[in-house]
Order: sequence, then C-alpha cells, then structure tokens
Amino acid sequence: MISLANRSLVTIDDFSNAEIEAVFSLADEMSDAVTRQSDLCRGKILASLFFEPSTRTRMSFEAAMHRLGGDVISVMEMGSTSLSKGESIADMARIVGSYADIIVIRHPWEGAAKVVADYAGVPVINAGDGGHEHPTQTLCDLYTLKKERNTLEGLKIALWGDLKYGRTTHSLAYALARFGATIHFRPGAGLGLPQHVIRKLTKEYGGILESYGESGGTKSDKTFPLDAIYVTPSNPHQLTNIPGINIQIEMEKGVDALYVTRLQRERLDADAGKDQVYPVVDKKLLKKEQFKETIVMHPLPRVDELAYEIDADPRSMYFKQAAHGVPIRMALMALLLGAKEADIRETVHNYARKKGYPVYKCNSGVKCENKKCVTAQPTETRYIKPEFIIVETKPLTLRCLYCEHEAVPPYFASLKWHEGKLENKQYYPSHSYMAERIRPENLIIFGSERDAESQGFYPSLHPHISEKKV
Amino acid sequence: MISLANRSLVTIDDFSNAEIEAVFSLADEMSDAVTRQSDLCRGKILASLFFEPSTRTRMSFEAAMHRLGGDVISVMEMGSTSLSKGESIADMARIVGSYADIIVIRHPWEGAAKVVADYAGVPVINAGDGGHEHPTQTLCDLYTLKKERNTLEGLKIALWGDLKYGRTTHSLAYALARFGATIHFRPGAGLGLPQHVIRKLTKEYGGILESYGESGGTKSDKTFPLDAIYVTPSNPHQLTNIPGINIQIEMEKGVDALYVTRLQRERLDADAGKDQVYPVVDKKLLKKEQFKETIVMHPLPRVDELAYEIDADPRSMYFKQAAHGVPIRMALMALLLGAKEADIRETVHNYARKKGYPVYKCNSGVKCENKKCVTAQPTETRYIKPEFIIVETKPLTLRCLYCEHEAVPPYFASLKWHEGKLENKQYYPSHSYMAERIRPENLIIFGSERDAESQGFYPSLHPHISEKKV
Amino acid sequence: MISLANRSLVTIDDFSNAEIEAVFSLADEMSDAVTRQSDLCRGKILASLFFEPSTRTRMSFEAAMHRLGGDVISVMEMGSTSLSKGESIADMARIVGSYADIIVIRHPWEGAAKVVADYAGVPVINAGDGGHEHPTQTLCDLYTLKKERNTLEGLKIALWGDLKYGRTTHSLAYALARFGATIHFRPGAGLGLPQHVIRKLTKEYGGILESYGESGGTKSDKTFPLDAIYVTPSNPHQLTNIPGINIQIEMEKGVDALYVTRLQRERLDADAGKDQVYPVVDKKLLKKEQFKETIVMHPLPRVDELAYEIDADPRSMYFKQAAHGVPIRMALMALLLGAKEADIRETVHNYARKKGYPVYKCNSGVKCENKKCVTAQPTETRYIKPEFIIVETKPLTLRCLYCEHEAVPPYFASLKWHEGKLENKQYYPSHSYMAERIRPENLIIFGSERDAESQGFYPSLHPHISEKKV
Repeated sequence: MISLANRSLVTIDDFSNAEIEAVFSLADEMSDAVTRQSDLCRGKILASLFFEPSTRTRMSFEAAMHRLGGDVISVMEMGSTSLSKGESIADMARIVGSYADIIVIRHPWEGAAKVVADYAGVPVINAGDGGHEHPTQTLCDLYTLKKERNTLEGLKIALWGDLKYGRTTHSLAYALARFGATIHFRPGAGLGLPQHVIRKLTKEYGGILESYGESGGTKSDKTFPLDAIYVTPSNPHQLTNIPGINIQIEMEKGVDALYVTRLQRERLDADAGKDQVYPVVDKKLLKKEQFKETIVMHPLPRVDELAYEIDADPRSMYFKQAAHGVPIRMALMALLLGAKEADIRETVHNYARKKGYPVYKCNSGVKCENKKCVTAQPTETRYIKPEFIIVETKPLTLRCLYCEHEAVPPYFASLKWHEGKLENKQYYPSHSYMAERIRPENLIIFGSERDAESQGFYPSLHPHISEKKV
Repeated sequence: MISLANRSLVTIDDFSNAEIEAVFSLADEMSDAVTRQSDLCRGKILASLFFEPSTRTRMSFEAAMHRLGGDVISVMEMGSTSLSKGESIADMARIVGSYADIIVIRHPWEGAAKVVADYAGVPVINAGDGGHEHPTQTLCDLYTLKKERNTLEGLKIALWGDLKYGRTTHSLAYALARFGATIHFRPGAGLGLPQHVIRKLTKEYGGILESYGESGGTKSDKTFPLDAIYVTPSNPHQLTNIPGINIQIEMEKGVDALYVTRLQRERLDADAGKDQVYPVVDKKLLKKEQFKETIVMHPLPRVDELAYEIDADPRSMYFKQAAHGVPIRMALMALLLGAKEADIRETVHNYARKKGYPVYKCNSGVKCENKKCVTAQPTETRYIKPEFIIVETKPLTLRCLYCEHEAVPPYFASLKWHEGKLENKQYYPSHSYMAERIRPENLIIFGSERDAESQGFYPSLHPHISEKKV
Repeated sequence: MISLANRSLVTIDDFSNAEIEAVFSLADEMSDAVTRQSDLCRGKILASLFFEPSTRTRMSFEAAMHRLGGDVISVMEMGSTSLSKGESIADMARIVGSYADIIVIRHPWEGAAKVVADYAGVPVINAGDGGHEHPTQTLCDLYTLKKERNTLEGLKIALWGDLKYGRTTHSLAYALARFGATIHFRPGAGLGLPQHVIRKLTKEYGGILESYGESGGTKSDKTFPLDAIYVTPSNPHQLTNIPGINIQIEMEKGVDALYVTRLQRERLDADAGKDQVYPVVDKKLLKKEQFKETIVMHPLPRVDELAYEIDADPRSMYFKQAAHGVPIRMALMALLLGAKEADIRETVHNYARKKGYPVYKCNSGVKCENKKCVTAQPTETRYIKPEFIIVETKPLTLRCLYCEHEAVPPYFASLKWHEGKLENKQYYPSHSYMAERIRPENLIIFGSERDAESQGFYPSLHPHISEKKV
C-alpha cells in the first residue's frame, strides 16, 4: 500500500495506470458504503471553488465529501468572489489552502488548476480548467468501462460526436491509449480531432492513426461513417491489423463501448448549428448486430444525440456513469487526504510509451499565445513565469506547461556554441533545421528579429534565412 | 405506526388528513429537540435545488436537515446550473437522485416537482413550482393553527389580501376544506378567488360558497367587507347556517385566525398597484371585539399589510409560523427518509368528499396551454407525455396532471361506439351534450377540425355543430 | 472565567481590551486544534448571510464553524433573497434567528448588522456593513500583532495606503489607540484620514495627532513621507516625545509593523487612478535599516502595493494574517455560543479614555443624511427609529447610532427652560453657543425654520440668528 497523500490531480497524467486502478479498487469499497456515513474524513474540509457553472461535478464532489464524513466550504460563480477585486489565483489558493484540507477547482482559465496546486499547500483536484483538462470525468468514464468490461486493457471504444471541442473526449482518448485501446472516431461534420490531439496520440502515446476522412465508412452503412481508427501499437492483439486495417471487418466486429458527446452549440457559429449532421444513438441504431454487446456512454448533459427511448436499455450506462462520480471522488479524496492508502499492483501495464520532452530553460522571448491561458491574464503575469517544453524541432514547437497549447516561435539561436565568436552568434527562423542541432539547454527564442538583434545576434547566413530577408 | 419512506410530497393532496396529523405529532417531538443535535439522519444527504429565489424556505429545509444530523448539497439560481446547457429536468433528477438521499426543489415551471419525483428514485419535496403548489408552506400554516387552536377540525378562518395570485392561500383553502373549516374571504380590490379555485372548493371538495361581491359587509363596518363565506357542508355545526348565512352574525362571532398575504406588486400592472385598496392589520383593527381571540397569520415576507406595531401582540403568530418551518421539515424529512414512522390515528376525519376524475387515456389532440407548465418546455417535450383528467363535461374540460391548469379543447369524438360504421364516426364541439355520453376511456380529442377529419371523423350532424359550420 | 454567551460583535468597541485578549488566548488553543475535528459546537448552526461579495471572510467563518463541529446555512448575494420582495432586515433577522444559533452578516447598508443584532434573538457577528465596521478583520490584525510581537500594548505601527476609504484601517487605528499604540500614517495622494476619524482618534480616544502634510518626511527619504504621527497620550514611554516629535528620529527607529492597504480603484474617479502615487512595499524597501525588524501586514486582496517578490520574506505576515481568520473566528463563535468561557485578565490595560456621549432623546427633527445608512432605506423606515448621540456642541453635531455618520442639524431649541414663557421659546442655528448650555435631555432639533415655528418656537433674538434672518 502506498500513500498518495498531498498529491494533486491536475491532469490525468498525474496518475500512473496502477494508481488509476488503485483509485478504482477503493471506489468499489466506497460504492458499498455510499449511503452509509463514513468517518474516514471526519473533521476534514473540502473547499469547492467553482468559477464556472456546474451542477453534476460540484454536487458529486460535495456529496462525496459528506459521504466521507467531512465538510464543505464553497464558492460558486465569478461575481461572488474577490477575484473581481483583482486578486490573483495564487493569493486565493494560499488563503483557501489555509482554511481547507483539500481544494477542488473549476475555472475558465486554462492552467488555473496547476497554479492553485502550485500555491495552495494542500491537495488540489482539477474539476475543469477551461478547455484544458477535467481528469475526474475521465476517471468516471474509465471506471464505468472497468465495471462493465472487467478490464481497462485493450478495449475497443467508439468516440462519436464533437471530437473537436469535447475536452472529455480528448482526455479519455489519451487515457484509453495508455491502457492499450483501439479507438474508432466518428465526428459530427467539421468536428473532427484537432491536430494537436492527433499529434499527441501518435507521437506522444506512440499509436497509429488510420484516417478515412469524413467520407469513410461504406455507402451501405451511412450510420457508421468512421473517420479514423486509432491503435495503440504496443497492443499485440491489434498490431496484426496494422497497417491496412480492414475497416469493414473492424466495424462488423463492433465495439466495447460507444461514447457519445453532445454538440456544444454555444461553440458554433449561429448558422453552423442549424444543419449540423450529428450522430444520434436511438433504438434503431442499437438494434444493429455490431452494437449487440456495446455499452452506451455519455458525459451528460445530452441534447439530441441520445434518444430518451434508450434510457431503459440495459446497455445504456450514462446514468450509472454519472452515479459513479460519487464513489470515484470519495476514493480520490480519501487517498489525497491520506485517509486511505493506494493498493498499487505491479501487474498493471502501461501501453503508451509516453515521451518526456526537454524544457525550454531560458525563459525569455516567448509567451503563451492562448488567450485563455492563465499565464496570459493581467492579474497573474505579476508572478507566473511562463514555462515551456520543446515538443518538435521541425519546425521548432513549444508547448505551454500550464495550458498545453502549442506554438511555433518566430526565431531562435544557441546561447552557447558560438563561444564568444561573434560571427557564430546567429539566429534562425523556427523552420530551420538548426533547431534539431541546438541542445535544449542552450536554446534561446526571440519574439522578433529586433529582439534577436538587440541581444547581439545576427541573421543566419544559411539560405533558408536569406530567403526571408530579401 | 406506518412507514412513509420513499414517498414524495408534490401537492398537499399527496398526504391524507391522518398523515398530516402524523407529521404534526412528530414535529412536536422535533420542536423539543430542535437545538440539540439529533442523529436521526446522520449520513443522509439532502439535495436542495432552488431555481428561484428563496431565503426562508431554503434555509429552513437546510437547517432542518442539519438539525437531523444530515448534510446538504445545494444548487441556487438558474444561471449556475447545467439547465443552461439544455439539460432536461428528468435527467437532472436522475443524476441528483444518485448523489443524494432526498431532494427538495423550487422551480419556476409548474409541474416541475412532479417530474423530479417521477424520475429521481428518491423522495422529493416540492418547495414551490411556479404558481402551482408549495405544500410545506401549507403544512406550516396548518401546524400553527393546530398548535394555537389545539385542533384542525371545524375552524373558522379569514383569508385576506391577494386571493387571486396567492399560491399559499389557495393551497391553504383546499387543506382547510379537508379539515371541515368555514372560510371568510376578503380580497384586495380585483384580487378575488379565481374561478378554478372556486370550482375546486365547491365541486371537488363539496363545499358551499356564498358570495357577497366586493361590496359585501355592512356599511358601518368598512374594515371587514366580506367577499364570500365558504362552508364545508359535511361539518354539522355549520350546516345549520346554510343556506342564507346571516353575514352580520357571522362577522360578529369573529374568526379563529386571520390569514393575510402581501400584495404581490410584481404581478400587477405598474398603474394598478398605486391606488390599490388592500387590507391592513394594525393595532386599531385588533382592538375590535370580533378579533379578541383571533390569531394573526402571514406567510411572510410582508409589505404594508401587517403593521410593525402589532409584532409584540400575543395574537401575532407570523414569526412563530416561520419558526415552525424547521420542526415541520425535520418531521417530514425524517418520515420520507424512513428514519421515523408515522403515527396514523384512525380518528382523524376527512370532511371533503374529494372527487376522483377519469383520466383522458388517448393521449392525443391536446397539449397544456399553460406556458409555464413543465410539459410545454422545449427541453421537456422530448420525453414527457402530457396527461389529463376530465373534470367537466359541460363543456368538456381537461385538467393537466402536471400543472393542474384547465382548458376546454375545441373538438372531441368517441373512439369506440361507431363500431366501424363510418356514418357514426362523428366529432363534436366541446360544448356538445355528447361529452356526457362518451365513456372517458373512449374519448378522443382534436385540436382542430382538420385534425379530426384527417383521422377519418366527420362533423356531427346535430344542430349545435351545424350552427358552427355555417 | 466569564461567559460571553449571547453577546454580539457589531463594532470592535463591543469588546473590552480584556475581552479581546480572551478571544486571543482561546484562538491560541484553537490554532492547535484547527485541523482536528472539534465537538465544541456540534449541533449548532451558523447562518452565513452575505449580501455583498466576499471569499475570504465568508469561507473563514464557514470553515471555523465546521472546525468546531457545527453546520452552516448560507445566503450569498442580493439577488437570491427575499429582500428583493421588500422584506425588512428586522423580519429577516427574526426568521433566520429562529433557524440558526448564530448569525454572521455582511451587508451594503451601514448599520445593518446592528439591526440584525437588535432583532435576531441570537448572537450576531458583523462581517462588514458597508463602509462602517468589520470587527473580525480588526481581531485578525491585532492577533497577528500579538503573535509576532508578544504584546499588543504600546506598539509602533505604520499605516500606509488608502487611509480615506479603508474601513479596516480606521477600525485598526481605533483599536491600536485603545492598546496605547503610536501610529505613523502615510496615505496615497489624496487618500489621507478623513476628519471624522481624526476627531475620533483625538477627542474620543484622547490621543495626540501631529500632522506633517503630504510633503512630510525628509527630502532624502522619498520612500517614507510621513503624513502624521498619532500617539496615545496615556502611554508613558511615548509621552516624552510630545510635543515636538522629532520626525527624523522617529522614522529611523523603525516600526513594529507596516500595515498596507490596497488602492480601491472602484472608489476613485476613472482618471484619478491613473497617475495615483501610492506606496509600494518591495524587496528594496525592506532592505532599509528601519524596517529590519518590521513585519509587513495587509488585509488582502492586494493589487500592486505588495510586490510578490517579498512573499517568501520571513517578515511578510499577510498570509499568516489571513490564516489566523479561522482560529480567531472559531474562538469568537465558541464564546458567543457559550461553548467556552472567556479568560478575562485584570492586568489588561485600556489606554484610551473613550468618552461617553449624551443621547439625543427627543427623536424628532433629524434623520441620518448618509444614503447608505440602514435607517435611510424605504424597507427599514417602517420600524426603525433613528437614534443619535451628541458628539459636539460647537457646532452642534449628532452622530447616528447605526452608521456612525455625523451631521450638523440646522436648528435646535430647549424643550424645558422657557417653562411656559412663550418669549423664551426660542430656536437657534446649530453654530449658536447656546448648544453648550442646553442639557442634552432637553434638546430638540428642527430640520427647518418652518418645523421649529410649526411647533411654537420663535427665532432667537441673539445677533447670530438675526444675521441669518435678514
């Protein structure tokens, strides 16, 4: 048994596969006790900080804390807080951390939960930071799969609906990759996976993505136009299908679970939504042979993509999925508060070879371009130093460590290798092959030519830069 | 002792007179213990869902749950919820029902509490659904009468003020009728009882209403212009006065309680409110002989209809009435959670011969016309089937089972008696005497002539219909 | 040990110095137990009524109640309450007082907490009533000083920043005066102490204020332009410096604590804020010799006046100060609920000779002119009788007992001394020397000449009045 006390859960990657499984086995214990008062966390206080609307998530956290015998202090909505007086998230975190034993936060700024975790001095759980992460939703999703399929390893899952803006879908896809899943993607029109998610799934989690475009699927089977199939390559059973997956065979075999998300109309243009082609799960669909054994999941709230007529179908898991929120959050908080220890099993396998990326050490010349990033907010720039990792060298690409948005900075150079020889003190555009040659610890980035030159660097003489300079 | 566990309280009619008295005897026990921590409901969670403003009601429910040793999770206000994401009440109910052990809900849509009760899977208490019902307020009112008058049976009560919009007044009147009361109505100008309330009191509860118009009362006694007197006919003591109640004698005998409600200015036109003639209870009024023994009640908040000068008068009960909210709600929740059983006494009498009405089985051709009805909301039509009962046949009148609004549909027919003979397949206008002849289980309603004809029915040949067709 | 049960804390003056010290010694006990569940207040309910935004104060009260084992019912924000239905504060107080065992209130109306305390029937704690008082903030400030300096008596404190609008600064200054402090004031431009605060400090608390104007301080030391020094004269150690305090020497000796407040931009004109000269505490400042032993305090939230770079400095106390909010409020509530008794020590000295003022008995002719005063609100005038004390006679000046604003009424007279002789029934303008001669119990005030004359008084024949009458 291993203590997870004083850990925080900001992204799902903060927990290993074995730790996730340990949360689940404790949640099983909690499910049995969920209506009985527990004294596990008596005297403990949860600070429930919701700066964006939420019913389900907030109530399930608060119910979970009460089921554990603890108490809750809460903040709901932006208007009712001192943030309107210009207080920084770090100050709020330090103060609330001195009142409460554990903090759960939902905030519109991406990366906000990381800041709270950095300053609070108590365990912090991210309940959604803008479009960034919502890891306890992913835990509920995985726990539902585990309960219904008895394993998380090597599942075949179909993700349908809004794959572009659906934060929960992205997190679930990463987590499934770590457990060796095969994923079928079927987006609504124009709502396919964004490039950064595809890159993460393939480069970072090492899987293979076979794309069919939105015209994918057979003509005779309009209801199931696969967009892409993702396979974790370290999964031996599935590798046999790669390359050249036979899409027709794949589809006929069916999937373990069909995970649908709602169309987030508020994200679309007013016109775009009207004629939106969007998958709908109804009785007729569930009669198809390939869904005979398939469970239906949805993070809720639903709009039209799940017909009410299937609510009574035993394959419909979305209300169970929501109900799992309480035991999962009980288990999680009991672990982070040190009221329970984690049963870490060596046998849990990690299928994704997740890459570590070098850090950009010389914190200058680059800011996160994401306007919703916590590092871009006037109240936060007073104390947050932006931090980046180098995720690509062709072209040179940096990822913000707060919100995980990626950007290609305009120019770079090496701080070291010219060793004082001014003629070597050159800077390069981001697409230069030199990005591969400079060691990350020597890298310096410039926001503009003037920035570079004001620091004593000269334009590169290599052809690729001279093209630009003409 | 009888268990009320897992019951819901959506309208005051959900509880029999004996059950109401059982709540009151448990509330007496609770009153003694109200400042001592009880462990009756330790480990239980109340979900307090308030989608409309409320201080008193919400706080007294939450205080009651804490006094019972339980915990509370809450939602306040529309903006802070997933309803803004288009979630249906049924979905919310199912999810919250998986987090909490009991739900209390206030919602602007009429009939919303019934939907929550239908889907939550846990006991649900209606804390006000639009203008429809607020049964725990009625329980507090009745409990105050019981405590001060030692009985609920055969009381004489004056209801003053806004009798048109005052939801609490209507519910109280029905409940008083069930306990055999005589009621004196004295509305503010233009704020008399609506027709549907009068119909319910007379037809459904079987009482007699003697109306005097707003000019009622004697000229010499302007402060007490009775509008109407209602008598439950099954009350033997009072039957002697009927018909031809001597209003002067009635008035001089005084009343057990004077129940006043505030003028809801927000419901009136801007101009209407200015010169509103409205009853005021002050020191001068209470000096009158007929009020010597009368207690003064008010659901609060007050505006100008209760002078502050009478707050210290021992007959003023409105703060006690509010304070009773906690023990009443403690008793109610302890019963619905099964932590206590109800002491049902056979001796409690039911004075009103409440009628059962036939259900309109063929759910077609009619929708609730009330725009605030839960069945009329876009998010709810996806799954709610409107349901109606037939409360009148002259003309044919249906009452919505959700919001209890009544409407006269345009056309109807019988599904059965023509037995295939096309010439008998006739439809009738709602005022036709045929409404009385068709058995409710055979009734079919049409929203328009075209509806009827598209389903193979022909206009009736009876004169009353031909008049219309000319 | 003395019980403080059923007392309220509306202004810091409601507690004697010895009582404040008793709160602090209990807070020391609570600090040790703050993360362990206490059963001191099990079964008790705190009503947390916040009609203005607050994170810190509300959460620390609620956390404190939970740490004591009690429960919380809460109201946040104006919109969600029955106040919007026109309910008075007194009615709300009576009702909430029947639900809860103790009330904490923040309200925008000045004097609102006094009204709640007058009507609730349970202990009431003022958590801020408009610009009036916020006594638990002062307790936290004093407690931080006590913990860091081991005594509250005879400290030397610098108050920097917004001394004009900063409610917390005024309360702290009064409290420091009571404990015999020397205070250095350094306001932002145009943000000096208001006249009524200066009058209170000098006339009421009996201290001496030596003013230097905003050009005070030496030219060579621009960072420390003292505006004024305040000395409690009963403090023997400091009296030696008076009169003719050598400002240069004073400054070089340093201070025990530097208390900074934020610029409340929302109070300033849009333009005024832009070029505002405002003190900033940063690393450079703290390197100065005179601050070597000085602790830095701030009520938070900060804006730019405290640089983040000093957060790690051991002299920075502002996060500790906020954290003290929980044990202080635990101690306070345990005392007011009678769960603990106060350890009153005779040795605690009171340095300020606080004056008692005569009450204006004849409650007529004068209303509080402060638009934010609770007595000036339409919902409250129905029952509140304004009350005033006479704080000056040159000119005649009255202070509202609710909001403590002071005003000079236009005319006055004596009700008694003319003893029926009409020629003596004269009224005077407020600047007349006659104000000193009339005994307070005989004083009557008039809002206008017409008021006076309609009550049978005649203009004074003394020259000062005839000037006015010409």
